[in-house]
Parts: sequence; C-alpha cells; structure tokens
Amino acid sequence: MTTLAQASPDLFAAAARRVMARCEELARVTAVPGTIERVYLSTEHARVNRLAAEWMREVGMRTRQDVAGNQLGRLDRVVAGAPDPDAPVLLIGSHLDTVPDAGRFDGIVGVLMGLEVARLLRTPLGDGRFGVSLPFGLEVVAFSDEEGTRFGKALLGSSAVAGLWNDDWWALTDADGTSLRQAFLEFGLDPGRIGEAARRPEQLVGYLEAHIEQGPELDRRGEALAVVSSIASARRFQIVVEGEARHAGGTPYDMRRDALLGASEAALAVERLCRAEHHIIGTVGQLEAFPGAVNIVPGEAHFSLDLRGEFDGTRDAVWDDLSRELDAIMGRRGLRWRSREVHSAAAVMCAPLLQDVVREGIASTGTIGADDPAVIFSRAGHDAMSIGAITDVGMLFLRNPDGVSHHPDEAVSAADVALGIRALAESVLQLGADHRAR
Amino acid sequence: MTTLAQASPDLFAAAARRVMARCEELARVTAVPGTIERVYLSTEHARVNRLAAEWMREVGMRTRQDVAGNQLGRLDRVVAGAPDPDAPVLLIGSHLDTVPDAGRFDGIVGVLMGLEVARLLRTPLGDGRFGVSLPFGLEVVAFSDEEGTRFGKALLGSSAVAGLWNDDWWALTDADGTSLRQAFLEFGLDPGRIGEAARRPEQLVGYLEAHIEQGPELDRRGEALAVVSSIASARRFQIVVEGEARHAGGTPYDMRRDALLGASEAALAVERLCRAEHHIIGTVGQLEAFPGAVNIVPGEAHFSLDLRGEFDGTRDAVWDDLSRELDAIMGRRGLRWRSREVHSAAAVMCAPLLQDVVREGIASTGTIGADDPAVIFSRAGHDAMSIGAITDVGMLFLRNPDGVSHHPDEAVSAADVALGIRALAESVLQLGADHRAR
Repeated sequence: MTTLAQASPDLFAAAARRVMARCEELARVTAVPGTIERVYLSTEHARVNRLAAEWMREVGMRTRQDVAGNQLGRLDRVVAGAPDPDAPVLLIGSHLDTVPDAGRFDGIVGVLMGLEVARLLRTPLGDGRFGVSLPFGLEVVAFSDEEGTRFGKALLGSSAVAGLWNDDWWALTDADGTSLRQAFLEFGLDPGRIGEAARRPEQLVGYLEAHIEQGPELDRRGEALAVVSSIASARRFQIVVEGEARHAGGTPYDMRRDALLGASEAALAVERLCRAEHHIIGTVGQLEAFPGAVNIVPGEAHFSLDLRGEFDGTRDAVWDDLSRELDAIMGRRGLRWRSREVHSAAAVMCAPLLQDVVREGIASTGTIGADDPAVIFSRAGHDAMSIGAITDVGMLFLRNPDGVSHHPDEAVSAADVALGIRALAESVLQLGADHRAR
Repeated sequence: MTTLAQASPDLFAAAARRVMARCEELARVTAVPGTIERVYLSTEHARVNRLAAEWMREVGMRTRQDVAGNQLGRLDRVVAGAPDPDAPVLLIGSHLDTVPDAGRFDGIVGVLMGLEVARLLRTPLGDGRFGVSLPFGLEVVAFSDEEGTRFGKALLGSSAVAGLWNDDWWALTDADGTSLRQAFLEFGLDPGRIGEAARRPEQLVGYLEAHIEQGPELDRRGEALAVVSSIASARRFQIVVEGEARHAGGTPYDMRRDALLGASEAALAVERLCRAEHHIIGTVGQLEAFPGAVNIVPGEAHFSLDLRGEFDGTRDAVWDDLSRELDAIMGRRGLRWRSREVHSAAAVMCAPLLQDVVREGIASTGTIGADDPAVIFSRAGHDAMSIGAITDVGMLFLRNPDGVSHHPDEAVSAADVALGIRALAESVLQLGADHRAR
C-alpha cells in the first residue's frame, strides 16, 4: 500500500504553516471587531464559505454550498484514470462558525487540516487527479453551524447533512427576534429544500474530524495527539424562574419573591450535584435578571443549563435529581420555574475501525506517545455527533495548551498541527487499505 | 387663618380624577410600547416636560425648563395685590422619569398632586392670582431624573437643583455608550451651564413631596396617608467578578474559575447578611454573565448592589462585612472582584416642622387613623434626599396596595389621592400660618 513514510517532514511543516496562516485570515472575518464572532447565516458566514471554496478549488476540488449553508469540496474517486462521481466518499472536516469572543482554532483547524490532507493525497501526480489512488472519493466539509450561538440550537449544519432536521427549528429566533426561517431566506437559502442537504448512508464511507481537545488531558500527558473513543451525551435547557418584580427599597424580605436569588441557588445546585457524579459536567453559561434595574427586585430570571456526560443514563439521572432540587429551592422562595429542552444528543461512540485507523495514523508520526496514544472521551460536542446517525465517525484530537477553548487564548502549535496532518493523511490511507482488503 | 375645612369633598374628588387621568396620559409616553419607560434626556422626557408645562400654565403658573431638564412652574407670592418674584418659594413636586417596565404613579402622582394643590389655592379668586394669600411663593417641580435608569446614577435632576452636581458624572455612559455630556447636548442643554440649576437656601421655604409608599405598611394598617420621618441612606455599587472563560464541555471542575458561580454566591450572601441586620435591605437587581454563551464557562459576571438602611453607620458596617465575605468567596474560587460605588446618599431626616404640618394636613382629612397617622421611615430614595442639602424637606406617603411599585401593577386609589391632595393643600396652609406667626 501507499504510505507517506517517505514524505519529507518539510511537507507537513509547510502544510501546518498554511493552516496557521489561514486560521489568522479567517479570524479577521468577524462581526465584532477586536474579537472573533461568526454566527450561522451571517455575512461573515458567507465570507468564510467563499474563502473555503476558493481554497478547495485550489486543491482541485469541485465545490458547492449545500442548502443548509455548509461548504463542501469534492475529489471524486478515480477509476482507470476517470473520475467516478457516484462512488461513496469519505467526509473529512469540521465547522467554521464560532462562539462569541472565540478563539482561532475550534472547528476551523479541522476544516483546514482536511484541505491539507486532500492536497497531500494528490501532490505526487500534481495533475489535478489523486496522487494516491483511493477506493473512495474524498469530500472536505465546512459545517455552517456547530456552536448554536445564534439560535441556541447546536449542530444545525451537520444535522441537515445527517437528515435530522426538525421542522420545529424554523421558529427558533435569534437575539434580534429573527427566525431561523427568515435568516435562511435572507442568506439566500430555500427552507423548503432543506431535505436536499441530507446524505444517504450508502453515499458515505465514514467521517473523520480533527479537532483541538478543548480540555487539558493531552497537555497534562505531554502528548500531541489522541484517539477519541466517544463524544459526550449532552442536553441543553433554557430555564425560566418567575417571582415578582418589586421596588428594592420598599419591599421587606418577607414579601420578596426574588427570581434572581432562586436562579443563583439553582446555579450553585448544578455545580454541587454534577461534582458529586463521575464524568458529569453541568454549566450555567447565561443568566440574566429582569427587568434588570439596580433598584428593582428581579421578577424573572433566565438561565441556560448545559449538561454533559459519558453515558446518557447518568446524565438523565442527574437532570432528574436537579429537577427535584429546583422544585425544593423555588418552593421555599415562592417562585415558579419551567424549563425548555433546546438540545439533546445521545452519546456517540467512534467506530472501532475509525479509532483503529486514527491510532495507526498517530503511530506513523513517531512522536512522543505515538505508539500507545491517549484515548479520550470528548466532553465537548462535535459535528461527528450528528453525522454518527448516518455513517461511521472517527476523531483525532490535537493538544490544546492548558485546555483553553471558546476563548481568545485558545491555542494549538504549528508543530502539533503538522503531526496532526500527517496522522490524518495516514488514517485516510489506512482506511483505503482496509477497504481494498475487504 | 384660611383653611379648606369648608371646601366640598367634590373639589378633591374632581382633582383626584384629573390626577388619575393624567397618570394614564403620561403612561402613554413611553420608549417601549406596551410598557412604561421614560429615561433622562430622552424624547419621552421632552414630551412629558411639555405636557407638564402646559398643565402648569393652565393653573396660571410661569413655567421654565431648567438647565438640568427639570420642569418648573411658579406662582409668585402676592403682596398688596402685586406679585413678588423675589419672595422665597415652597417647592412641591417629585419626578416624571421611570424605571424600565414601570408603574404609572411612582413620582408622577406627586408632581400632579402638586399641580392640584396650586389649583386649589388659587381657586377661590379664579383670577390668576392666589386664591389664598400665602407668605411665600409656590413652585411645582417635576424632576427629570430620580430613578437613575439611564446612567446608573440616581437623583441627577434634584442633585443639580441642590447644587450637588459632580463633574465626574459627565463621563457616565448609558447602555449605548452615550455619555451624560453628549446626552445633554443632544437634548439641547448646555453642560457648561449646569451650575445655574442650583437654588440657594435663602430662595427656598422648604420642599414638600407626596409619593406612593412603595412598601406595604399603610396597606397593612388599613390607612391612607402617612407622615415620613426620614429617608433611608443608600449606596449603590456595580460589581465585577473576573474568572476565566472556558469551554463548558472540556473544562473539568478543578480547572474552572467560573465568575457566574462567584456572583451567585455573592447574591445569596447579600441576602443572608442583610436579613441578619434590622432595617437594612440589600438587592441584586442586575446580573449578567459574559461571554454569555450556553456552552462557555462564564469568565466574567457583572452585578449591581443596592444597599439601604435607616442609619448610615449600620449600612456601612454591612458593606464592610459583605466585602470580607466577597473576598472569601472569590478567594475560594480563584476569582477576582472589584466594585465601583455609583451612588451614595446619607440618610435624610424630614424637618420636624414639615413633619408637623404634614401630620396636621392628614388630620384635616378626618379619614381612618388621621388623628394619629402612621410615621414611616422611607426605605426608597426620593428627590427630597438631594433637596435636603439646601432646605427643609417633608414627605407625605399614600397607601400603595400590597406595596407593589416599580412594576406595571403599581397602584394607588383615586380616593386616597383625593385625601392626599386635601392633606397636602392643608399642609401648605399650615406652613403659611406658621410662617406668619414667626
């Protein structure tokens, strides 16, 4: 079989430099100058799709933006010197959207590494055809919405590709009251055609995603790359606490029904209950009091809850405990509460075959720990979660110093990206070899 | 002396009906349709000043808007049939600005009752001069900013009149980043002339303010009117908690420095420490987490603290205790915190003479409890707090069902307003009699 064993390390270093430079270039496409923010169906989304398409064409790919705003680039399988557009494809990619005040790498580096893998695999021939003949096509995908920043619902882009779109989502609104349906129309997409984004299992060989770890494990181990074993199950809730807005001066404590104090107790209860469970993590990332005046006892408070766990059962048991605890807190304070589940995803296991090829890819780099790489369960959600509904998924993690992500300080080193590109390209070759052997 | 003892109850009922109708009319002047919101130096502020000026002219007053945007109407003292524009005046009034999602009466009813008192005192002659000859002029004032909604600093209007303006305030900004100085210019006011709003003690006889109670005392007692003994001391702080924004999934609890959890503990500590003290009340009315995404551990949280007490010393001791408690909470969580004091007002005692005339005014109504009226310490701040720096102040409280204020359900009955107008007019006559006797 073909391998990259003889390839010069300079090739990977050059690829990594290009990835790092493009991360900088994409970071300049932002809705909020001085910080990075690109949300679904925004003008920034359109701009980075155009950039990605340009870079896809540069490596000989046929490009298209699908009906959910995902940007795709394709290298067809070549059989007897001729492209076969009907051959199944291996998807490689991640997402280009961001949280508010984001870092430069989350999602982005995975898309750009996919492009470098495509470039590497066609480099030897240099004539627009695969340099390495694979038994399947290769498609790089830049998902349009993974973070859920704008509409509160994560994984919209990959859900469309996985055929998981739910028509209830059309009514979701952003902070300005714009509905998802309206945003589609304003972006130039036809909501009525959303079904066309869905891929069928038989069209796909699998999905590989490289991503920064978003946790400190690799950094603590002093290793660059890890195999991902599974992706955490996650549920997200928007919770409303209702009390009574009253004048801050004139209302004695015994007459107060302060929604913010109820929400504060709830946020602390989330921490207490989740800490008590192994491999469960709960976060209140948003909290706001209404009417929100310095001299008014808050009559209403809204907060978000993000609950993750390695196993669906434990996670659901914690939510049940938490619901009982919220009943008790709000009951004591004369408050009412209600929750709306805005996201739910079962834990997704990475396919054993794809875990194996990623492990072999890491081994091929010969870096520290490469012969027995870390196997990590991802607490963060990824596009691979939705895509897991229609095909096998595998993930490669890159070391993320101190585990900082969703923050301007988020980092990954060019050296680790070079190792990651090599590992990912080797994984693809290993998968090709496995396919031929079957 | 002249009294209103022979006046028909219909006169007061008609005055109260006019007050109630005008409260409705003013409620329609709002920045947020469906709710009531009028902030300092807004187009709504200009509109209600024009309405108030019209109503002032209707009762024969000379009107002006001062350099701080307060609306004033004046009836000069009449000596030997001729107006004496240099005679000291008794100020009667309150404010026309509101909190967000406000009620219809807080402040507003006090301004409109002042107008009805002016009308009553000139009614008998009906020729544009005082019907009742007073030994001082009468000026109705509609203060422009009492709530501090827009710039976070309360009592801006009355502070200008009291000569307490602080040039540091010019740099205060609203939620859109507009500075107070810029807002003055946009409203058509000259910041350089702010000193001209200040009144000198020798120009004033005193200040009387009628206001809804904003607490449940009168309602619990089943009485309509109360004498105010003093106005609570108050301090307001904006507090910032700093931690580190990190990915909600990838960051284990031992690596988190969650600013929102620190702020939640702080809000609960405010409640705990203030409840433990008699006559101290603390409120966290605003709280927000940043960056405020469902899947990011909050790196920063902002909250407000409003601290009130009957005595300055107790209030300051509670703030000191709270500061130590915040040090401990934030220390345990690896967070930093800082506070900025945005408002500070010492407790203000109502002048014994003005308490007496208000008591006599209430007695004249003959209503339930009128011969031994409630004497209440106001936990809420009022324009009388600033005006207390330059002249004697007295206040009359009106029953507020269930004590709800700063809320759309805020209420006062027309019957109580009629009693209040009668009491306030009698208070003015009593003050006149006292002046003549001196």
